[in-house]
Amino acid sequence: MKMLSERLKVLADPSRLNILEFLLNPIKSYCSKEEGVCACDLETFLGLKQSTISHHMKLLEQAGFVKASPSGRWVLYELLPEGFKELREALEKFEPNMEIVS
Amino acid sequence: MKMLSERLKVLADPSRLNILEFLLNPIKSYCSKEEGVCACDLETFLGLKQSTISHHMKLLEQAGFVKASPSGRWVLYELLPEGFKELREALEKFEPNMEIVS
Repeated sequence: MKMLSERLKVLADPSRLNILEFLLNPIKSYCSKEEGVCACDLETFLGLKQSTISHHMKLLEQAGFVKASPSGRWVLYELLPEGFKELREALEKFEPNMEIVS
Repeated sequence: MKMLSERLKVLADPSRLNILEFLLNPIKSYCSKEEGVCACDLETFLGLKQSTISHHMKLLEQAGFVKASPSGRWVLYELLPEGFKELREALEKFEPNMEIVS
């Protein structure tokens, strides 16, 4: 059960949820590159320090919610839907008989 | 976004995940009553103090994952699948285009 609780803990942070929202729907005015979202865009968007963003991105990557891809001098980030799918599947057992309830 | 992060935080605790597992599939040998699972069963199962169990159950109830029903001298607990359904729906947006991926 430890892994599930750790992944939920990673997701339970408001700043990290904001980062995931941004990766889902990047706001153009905060994006400095055409190719995708980099850590510097997230710094600008959230008003957080580079070290804080790095910490958040490392946790999100380790938990399987985000993919990091080097692109020249930058690292670009994108959502990993598979990570959310796995989480959903792990929590599905807590919805027994929902076909009757819903 | 605050509410989602708070509900995820409630779920991210290993003891609380164990409690939810137990409510989903109660182990008969830990259950002292025919009618359902009470806090004392959870105390025995998890080896935790009454005050700790009360704290966990209060958080789980407030987050909508568990329902408490008075039954004579006892309070019986059961899973609330609707709470998990709401959580799943709140996280579904992070699985865009999963119909292509899966």
